[in-house]
Amino acid sequence: MSSARNISVALRRARLPRPRCFVQPIVSRAPSRIATRSFSLTSAVNATKEIKYTSNAYPNLKRDPKFAEITAEDVTFFKELLGSQSAVIDGVTTDAADDIEPFNSDWMRKYRGHTRLVLKPQNKEEVSQVLKYCNDKKLAVVPQGGNTGLVGGSVPVFDEIVINTSRMNKIRSFDEGSGVLVADAGVILEVADQYLAERNHLFPLDLGAKGSCHIGGNAATNAGGLRLLRYGSLHGNILGVEAVLADGTIVNSLSTLRKNNTGYDLKQLFIGAEGTIGVITGLSILCPPRPKAVNVAYFGVESYEQVRQAHQEAKSHLSEILSAFELMDGRSQKLVHESTGNKNPLDSEYPFYCVVETSGSNGEHDMAKLEGFLEHIMGEGIVADGVLAQDETQFQGIWRWREGITEALSHLGGTYKYDVSIPLPELYQLVDDCRERLTKLGFVGDDDSFPVRAVVGYGHMGDSNLHLNISVREYNKEVEKAIEPWVYEWIQKRNGSISAEHGLGLAKKEFIGYSQDETMVKLMKQLKDLYDPNGIMNPYKYI
Amino acid sequence: MSSARNISVALRRARLPRPRCFVQPIVSRAPSRIATRSFSLTSAVNATKEIKYTSNAYPNLKRDPKFAEITAEDVTFFKELLGSQSAVIDGVTTDAADDIEPFNSDWMRKYRGHTRLVLKPQNKEEVSQVLKYCNDKKLAVVPQGGNTGLVGGSVPVFDEIVINTSRMNKIRSFDEGSGVLVADAGVILEVADQYLAERNHLFPLDLGAKGSCHIGGNAATNAGGLRLLRYGSLHGNILGVEAVLADGTIVNSLSTLRKNNTGYDLKQLFIGAEGTIGVITGLSILCPPRPKAVNVAYFGVESYEQVRQAHQEAKSHLSEILSAFELMDGRSQKLVHESTGNKNPLDSEYPFYCVVETSGSNGEHDMAKLEGFLEHIMGEGIVADGVLAQDETQFQGIWRWREGITEALSHLGGTYKYDVSIPLPELYQLVDDCRERLTKLGFVGDDDSFPVRAVVGYGHMGDSNLHLNISVREYNKEVEKAIEPWVYEWIQKRNGSISAEHGLGLAKKEFIGYSQDETMVKLMKQLKDLYDPNGIMNPYKYI
Repeated sequence: MSSARNISVALRRARLPRPRCFVQPIVSRAPSRIATRSFSLTSAVNATKEIKYTSNAYPNLKRDPKFAEITAEDVTFFKELLGSQSAVIDGVTTDAADDIEPFNSDWMRKYRGHTRLVLKPQNKEEVSQVLKYCNDKKLAVVPQGGNTGLVGGSVPVFDEIVINTSRMNKIRSFDEGSGVLVADAGVILEVADQYLAERNHLFPLDLGAKGSCHIGGNAATNAGGLRLLRYGSLHGNILGVEAVLADGTIVNSLSTLRKNNTGYDLKQLFIGAEGTIGVITGLSILCPPRPKAVNVAYFGVESYEQVRQAHQEAKSHLSEILSAFELMDGRSQKLVHESTGNKNPLDSEYPFYCVVETSGSNGEHDMAKLEGFLEHIMGEGIVADGVLAQDETQFQGIWRWREGITEALSHLGGTYKYDVSIPLPELYQLVDDCRERLTKLGFVGDDDSFPVRAVVGYGHMGDSNLHLNISVREYNKEVEKAIEPWVYEWIQKRNGSISAEHGLGLAKKEFIGYSQDETMVKLMKQLKDLYDPNGIMNPYKYI
Repeated sequence: MSSARNISVALRRARLPRPRCFVQPIVSRAPSRIATRSFSLTSAVNATKEIKYTSNAYPNLKRDPKFAEITAEDVTFFKELLGSQSAVIDGVTTDAADDIEPFNSDWMRKYRGHTRLVLKPQNKEEVSQVLKYCNDKKLAVVPQGGNTGLVGGSVPVFDEIVINTSRMNKIRSFDEGSGVLVADAGVILEVADQYLAERNHLFPLDLGAKGSCHIGGNAATNAGGLRLLRYGSLHGNILGVEAVLADGTIVNSLSTLRKNNTGYDLKQLFIGAEGTIGVITGLSILCPPRPKAVNVAYFGVESYEQVRQAHQEAKSHLSEILSAFELMDGRSQKLVHESTGNKNPLDSEYPFYCVVETSGSNGEHDMAKLEGFLEHIMGEGIVADGVLAQDETQFQGIWRWREGITEALSHLGGTYKYDVSIPLPELYQLVDDCRERLTKLGFVGDDDSFPVRAVVGYGHMGDSNLHLNISVREYNKEVEKAIEPWVYEWIQKRNGSISAEHGLGLAKKEFIGYSQDETMVKLMKQLKDLYDPNGIMNPYKYI
């Protein structure tokens, strides 16, 4: 974050300079640090501690005896089917434990399975044959993309076969006239976005893990990310899905049309289903033109009430060019500093910080709107201090600072993560209430005798989406019990969602009742039974 | 359209005036003429001709004997259940033919059913009890909103009971902070938009029938309309759906959160299902801030190739403020003139016309972008002539001229309507090819001995959505046979959709195979059987 120290334009009252705006598309945005597959820093810090098996951490979870055990014969079948050596990692007939480990455990080092077989099919036909075989033989499977999830959805619990999408990594077509991209599920989000950048378009989704996550996984988890407020949800942007059901049926709904009202919109069921009814193998998605001008500002704010005011003013002044409004509390920023040694872009400390981004087609117009916004919020004393990125380096610096929170926290030990939607008026109250609760119970403190280091909050304010993070020195069942189900009850009372964008996975399977009524859960189970009657798809999770 | 004659600012080369822009929200937009429930002009012209019963027009359609016939006992049950006299129109035990007729036939006067019972429940509980009773007794039903559809989806074929949503017409809540509206399904689209206008927000859907159509019907048919290119589809904007399944199960998925990843997104199935798996009783929908500045321009263009150029330039110059790009061919405009006597906003005749609308938050910025666009397309000779609305009256005039095409055509006799998606390069070719085909077959001519008056095209260019209209002096089976399935084959070859936004209804039920493969149709039928095992919901239609 050293580059961010160069940000020198303090937006103090009556001293607002006219900053230079970017008029080039952001084609050169470097991947953020979280975005590498190896997550090397995390590994370096935690390598000494072995990840606990999920089956030990959740002793109530038992392997379902209805599932067959993988045999050498099965492995032979898959090797013949998939041909290439790189398509099968075989821990059944060989000792491949080290090669398999990255597919068994998540990058948060919270979940770890026992699989002995990883398959990497290359197209929908291969996926179809793999699934048909598994369905016939009652072999359980876990579809896996970039394995960047936060709820344990993409790793096995027991010996489920991992079906990894990394070898389905072709961009199939892009039409500049319509902006429609068709690509394999295993294309890395950042690769797709770079491809689009060269063609003056933008992938309508951006998130910290973009350097590793697969677009198929993004669809399967209905990822939200940083700019949903501007570009909308994947349910609106994904025009077509190609997927394979548990019995091998290929669902070809890969329309590239914006409008197609010919029957039930089945593809929607795969978006957010977390691989429990099928494996997504391809997508078509509507991509907007890349903005010609992008600006980003970072503010310090004295109270949550003022953050809300700033948010309202941003919506009003920036309107159609507002592309992100992010909130971070002071404690989260302090932890980032402690973890990385990087310094906050602002000199003074504040209880809250915001990142506001604009994306538009005319740099002068955008800057005029942004100046109007800045003058207003500074003039009215809504924000206390702020900086505006003056060049690409500073732009990257601010975004890396924001996007690096998740990884920075992970260096400090474990993190209990709650990704929730709450109506804006009470959004941040959850963090205060949780901190108060855990403090009263004697869990929170500065020295190593306390399990909890800090209770922090950050997230996508523009979408009413808060990430409540409880940073612990190590995972602790007593702390967990103090948080859950209390946190879910708190959210339920406010008609919020217990999972805004991270999904259910294993972490929230038991708690869906806090956000969905009995009828909804029953209807969901009915769908699961319809599409996966043997229950082989990502068992032990979701609903 | 007389007001449109006042539009005097011709945008000729090197003579581009600076027009006044609107800085007020369009709160006073008058309903377009198509938007009245009575469709009085249509009725006046066609009243002498009786509408043919669908059962006669489609002799292959037979009433399914598995459905029970309505008895006096059933009527008594419904009267007691719904209480109010206005909730039941009883043609079973009384002579109510005249009262029932508007619910039996569509406004295009193309479809007519034989129902003798119309029910108007007032809330989800009443809908639930009605459906449970019907399901138990095997009484078929047709859910009906404003009955403004174009494919015969909202009227009975035989004696299906009409469940009309007009008494579910309450706006339940609106949150200015988040822009989320929660409303009953029977709220009229224009009423919802007016309500939002008073609160500086906009319903993210607009279409010609807005004065009559219900928002529940819009959702059930996944309506697209005039500004989808800007505000996106209902699959993205609808946050929650409240609906009742055939067996009376109430599906409460009325979330008001932008992000909620807790299980399968079941509500999506109701969007576009045309009442075949349940009755939508309520919606929550994300509504954007109402634009402070709105401008509209109308152009004459010499060729379709130049229309495409103008479209590309509009996307590039107007970018985030572009809110509509509509195409109309010269023949369609001539028919509007012949039907209504109103004059085209431009003096000279052109083979193509476009409507371009901008919506933004800053009138000066928008006008600067618009001027840049106009200067470019005039300077490069891409468009031949054009006018820019100078005030609200002219704004309304241009839009009424565009939105009035459908109704104007209906005054001239019958219209075979095809609402299709085709990739842009070949979008208009369908109209030329169809005209050539029908002309060669001797169907097209100016005097009354020819069945076909004209083959015209217009539609939502920005969404690749064409409305191919064959204006006939009266409906004619020979003409229909010459068009179908030829038109569907033509579309299938281009990977288009045979129904972009109007849906399947009765008109396109048989033709779904041209846009969906066998597996997709099989999966859809599986869903239909799951949610409506007795098949009572809107039978004879959809899939």
